[in-house]
Amino acid sequence: MSVPFPIDETYVEPNFDVAQLASVEIFSPKVDETLWFFTELLGMSESGRDGDSVYLRAYEDYYHHSLKVTYRNEPGIGRTTWRTSSPQALGRRSSALEANGVAVSWRDGDLGQGPAADFVSPSGHTHSMLWEVDYYEAPESERSRLLSRPQKRPLKGVPVRRLDHVNHLVDDVTANREFLQDNLGFRLRENIVVQQREAAAWMSVSPLVHEIANLADRTGRSAGGNGGLHHLAFWYGFPQHLLDAADMFTDYGLTIDIGPGKHGATQAQFLYVFEPGGNRVELFGDVGYLIFDPAWKPLTWTEKDVDKSLIWYGSPLNREFTLFSDRVAV
Amino acid sequence: MSVPFPIDETYVEPNFDVAQLASVEIFSPKVDETLWFFTELLGMSESGRDGDSVYLRAYEDYYHHSLKVTYRNEPGIGRTTWRTSSPQALGRRSSALEANGVAVSWRDGDLGQGPAADFVSPSGHTHSMLWEVDYYEAPESERSRLLSRPQKRPLKGVPVRRLDHVNHLVDDVTANREFLQDNLGFRLRENIVVQQREAAAWMSVSPLVHEIANLADRTGRSAGGNGGLHHLAFWYGFPQHLLDAADMFTDYGLTIDIGPGKHGATQAQFLYVFEPGGNRVELFGDVGYLIFDPAWKPLTWTEKDVDKSLIWYGSPLNREFTLFSDRVAV
Amino acid sequence: MSVPFPIDETYVEPNFDVAQLASVEIFSPKVDETLWFFTELLGMSESGRDGDSVYLRAYEDYYHHSLKVTYRNEPGIGRTTWRTSSPQALGRRSSALEANGVAVSWRDGDLGQGPAADFVSPSGHTHSMLWEVDYYEAPESERSRLLSRPQKRPLKGVPVRRLDHVNHLVDDVTANREFLQDNLGFRLRENIVVQQREAAAWMSVSPLVHEIANLADRTGRSAGGNGGLHHLAFWYGFPQHLLDAADMFTDYGLTIDIGPGKHGATQAQFLYVFEPGGNRVELFGDVGYLIFDPAWKPLTWTEKDVDKSLIWYGSPLNREFTLFSDRVAV
Amino acid sequence: MSVPFPIDETYVEPNFDVAQLASVEIFSPKVDETLWFFTELLGMSESGRDGDSVYLRAYEDYYHHSLKVTYRNEPGIGRTTWRTSSPQALGRRSSALEANGVAVSWRDGDLGQGPAADFVSPSGHTHSMLWEVDYYEAPESERSRLLSRPQKRPLKGVPVRRLDHVNHLVDDVTANREFLQDNLGFRLRENIVVQQREAAAWMSVSPLVHEIANLADRTGRSAGGNGGLHHLAFWYGFPQHLLDAADMFTDYGLTIDIGPGKHGATQAQFLYVFEPGGNRVELFGDVGYLIFDPAWKPLTWTEKDVDKSLIWYGSPLNREFTLFSDRVAV
Repeated sequence: MSVPFPIDETYVEPNFDVAQLASVEIFSPKVDETLWFFTELLGMSESGRDGDSVYLRAYEDYYHHSLKVTYRNEPGIGRTTWRTSSPQALGRRSSALEANGVAVSWRDGDLGQGPAADFVSPSGHTHSMLWEVDYYEAPESERSRLLSRPQKRPLKGVPVRRLDHVNHLVDDVTANREFLQDNLGFRLRENIVVQQREAAAWMSVSPLVHEIANLADRTGRSAGGNGGLHHLAFWYGFPQHLLDAADMFTDYGLTIDIGPGKHGATQAQFLYVFEPGGNRVELFGDVGYLIFDPAWKPLTWTEKDVDKSLIWYGSPLNREFTLFSDRVAV
Repeated sequence: MSVPFPIDETYVEPNFDVAQLASVEIFSPKVDETLWFFTELLGMSESGRDGDSVYLRAYEDYYHHSLKVTYRNEPGIGRTTWRTSSPQALGRRSSALEANGVAVSWRDGDLGQGPAADFVSPSGHTHSMLWEVDYYEAPESERSRLLSRPQKRPLKGVPVRRLDHVNHLVDDVTANREFLQDNLGFRLRENIVVQQREAAAWMSVSPLVHEIANLADRTGRSAGGNGGLHHLAFWYGFPQHLLDAADMFTDYGLTIDIGPGKHGATQAQFLYVFEPGGNRVELFGDVGYLIFDPAWKPLTWTEKDVDKSLIWYGSPLNREFTLFSDRVAV
Repeated sequence: MSVPFPIDETYVEPNFDVAQLASVEIFSPKVDETLWFFTELLGMSESGRDGDSVYLRAYEDYYHHSLKVTYRNEPGIGRTTWRTSSPQALGRRSSALEANGVAVSWRDGDLGQGPAADFVSPSGHTHSMLWEVDYYEAPESERSRLLSRPQKRPLKGVPVRRLDHVNHLVDDVTANREFLQDNLGFRLRENIVVQQREAAAWMSVSPLVHEIANLADRTGRSAGGNGGLHHLAFWYGFPQHLLDAADMFTDYGLTIDIGPGKHGATQAQFLYVFEPGGNRVELFGDVGYLIFDPAWKPLTWTEKDVDKSLIWYGSPLNREFTLFSDRVAV
Repeated sequence: MSVPFPIDETYVEPNFDVAQLASVEIFSPKVDETLWFFTELLGMSESGRDGDSVYLRAYEDYYHHSLKVTYRNEPGIGRTTWRTSSPQALGRRSSALEANGVAVSWRDGDLGQGPAADFVSPSGHTHSMLWEVDYYEAPESERSRLLSRPQKRPLKGVPVRRLDHVNHLVDDVTANREFLQDNLGFRLRENIVVQQREAAAWMSVSPLVHEIANLADRTGRSAGGNGGLHHLAFWYGFPQHLLDAADMFTDYGLTIDIGPGKHGATQAQFLYVFEPGGNRVELFGDVGYLIFDPAWKPLTWTEKDVDKSLIWYGSPLNREFTLFSDRVAV
């Protein structure tokens, strides 16, 4: 008997097969300068090289790497890699993709990663999905007594703690959002709808407001191989570090895009900066708010308050950042 | 074919049936003073009264209430209430409890909550589980343009944002931890083992390091109806607010227990204070670290570093707080 | 003999006769709304009324008041009041003013202030100078155990701690700066010179970078009785409070002008907001840098870096704020 | 006529001859480790070597150095060096010392400093006083566009900004305080008096609450050449940096003495740590409160609230730190 009342068995239960954003690959025409940015300013560590690629991790990233920097003539984004909740979940998700007519291509995986299933979203972004990862093991001298910290806090720059999320520029937000919801189990958390068109969507598989966002682009660049990245984001956990980073970036001649400020969507404290290779990097100062409500109803920003969706307070948006931008600022 | 290699079908997949800590009930011999603390100092709002009980919520709690304060002669803890991930999950969990020989008792639920299944853990704490909740609807004048904020930021005290977690004092940490793991799907994130005895365990159903912790108690009080609470915790998101709160508490004559400081386990910035009714309240300044690794291996603090588990930096522990304490400080 | 080498007796020693900014008077066409802003949002207390004026102080202001709000049809600034270092210093400064041909007019002083010498700067702003002040005495219930805090930390809004500085809009920065240097002993700390014209000057009598700044205005309004105020500023001491205040202002519908951000000149973290009466109010999050060097050489920002002088990082300037603005934003 | 009322010509005007704490010399038995601490962890730069001494400065220290580390078998303090407000002030102060029977000994000055007058306080500490200093000039690549910053923000550790104050352990607080007041013009800001004995005194020549404090010592060590230093302090300006520093110190095995916390006296956020050479170093997270009142009445902490004088909130004092300690913790 157990439950003494009828249960709604038609309720669509959430899918927990995708667990987290494991790594992101970006392209850089100036790999050395890009590495200087991530290691000397953001305190990340190099964990391997492979052909034209360099692997990096932040000091509280647990795996072999969270960032892969690959040489290309233009900045842009390569693979966006997800880890599933179990080996079985990897099987279920790849089967679901194929059942939905999405081509899945298996490969051996990058350094530090096991077999990976690649597939392409409607916007042309390559996603990858895997279960096996290598854990980072610090050398003795770098081991922290803080058990949850895989490596001592670095003594360089203003060190970021972990990869947070990625934002893809797409031509059709709705199509891409539905692709991620239907195939990978992402939940829509917040979005922007102006003039009956979906201009942005924040989606997650965890209490984070997003591991991935989609932002509408009318530049045409997002379809190509060297575009399509609005930004990737690393996490501090403390808003003061955004001020420290902004101070450092200004002192060392980096181009701050916008911020520090607070987003309406996600509520997170943010700072956007361009790394020397031309990719926009976001730094998250805190966690914003977390979503524990299992029946979360997506929050939709419309004409009425869209100005508050990206900037709750802080710097105004610049034109290049604005939705439906005419060009991608690099 | 999909996955071109054998999948380990014996891998035990995580259970996501329990979604979040929905509310906690505490007992207070001085309800008016307790309410003053939570409303004037922590900026919470009263959302209803019922017999000897008053319901409260923080300004970013989405439901009717997250805290129930009930009059009793002694401070202590009443029900710890969990929301499941779906109505079906509520059914599965209550069936699982009964299958494991745990008595489940259904009742109509508190103000703002639907039918609830009560059951008792080995330590004698009453847990409750439900699916249906009433969402808080702010009056027009209190509505925020920040869509994820159900109510404007209060202008009183140093306002907390949401309920975070609860810590039960128990006689047998291992027995209670296994009860929560086996019946509710909690994952062990960190624990303390000294002299071959498990002295503390932090468990969660989400990327938070814990929604519930168990702390060993040798006072004998934890078995009774007026003991058993080490603390309940509310969340700020910004470490500075711990400093503001500590300043306010000192100015207004409250008893700060320990902090501000940083925990080793959870990595969170903390502050412990006793509310006037005698219950220890923790304030969390940030989110600490989050666990996205689906194959997380529990971190165990032993004799070697146990001093760093509770206090990574900041105030030393006082004797009353220490594990295996001889009395519960109230 | 004492000093075994020749001392340069021609060195011009600094003058320490003026000690601090004691209070500022502003005009408001909406006194009630202005009071709501300063009391409910900034946590200030009313300390008296007198005709069309209301007196206010922040919780770490030591005297009877630091702010006087007077009803007028238009927003603007009334008296800027300085306290001298001693009664003798008051005599010396008023004599110096007269010797320099500046008319000095004595009056009884406002509530809580002793005899005051009024005089007018070249820009038409009324300054006042005094020695005697009444100290604030908190009622027993409001007394803090923190000896340097004349009153408990308020439980309202995001409370400011003390008056910091004032910024006058002037037609001729150089003339006004020299007036303050020659008559009152102010030291020039930083200034902006573009196109050979001095556009801004920050001056102080203490290690603060400024108790008063002058900003060039081409609106013509600064000459009148209802203009001439660029902003007055209150101090928090903690940058996080700027974020809290920005969040509060946005939630409660106030108009944030620019910020939060960090000034180049002064290095202080700032936030500008318009109070409902139409006056721009600055909030200082920290102390910026302090000048202890007794031989400080003024720092001059020129075309090369003028963009960094007001905004080191954070929001860009809006047009109305910009130097030589065509109108004063109210 | 000027002032139309009698001025109290007997009022004792403040003396502004001493302007600032210019530098402090400490002794270290482990110079290399001490340098590692100040450069790698606190981000200071070496600016010269001279015999057994190494000179250091923080990135917002304007002169050649603010810290001199000299090899000795035991930790301790060397010269405490003050800069006067003018060359004439240097003459006046040295004459005053001699007139009061204090021996003044002139020497050429350290690297980067002009002729200096040495004299010894009743507690046996060597003070030095000078006018001429060399300003630090950064190499082109290290120059900041932030005019008030003599050098770019370092990319090492959690960099301190400037020297703040020094705290001398003395056998007789009252005698030493009066010496500093009578000879150098220090003003008493706060003190502790327990059992009719003055146990601590905070004194300044500026709006800072102190550039020097005296703390009672009963160890007998303060009379010797290798004792007498309670701590020297560097300044961050942002409380978060204390948390960052505490995290770093814990991760790198340094011994945190007490903190982070907030002082009652000074109101400053603090953190005490022992550098590897055995000297206690304080880090100041903010400026606390500033004293602009020219007629400031010293605040005296007595038995009633002495516990709040050193710790307003945060870590309790440890025994070694406590007033009248039996030994100095090194």
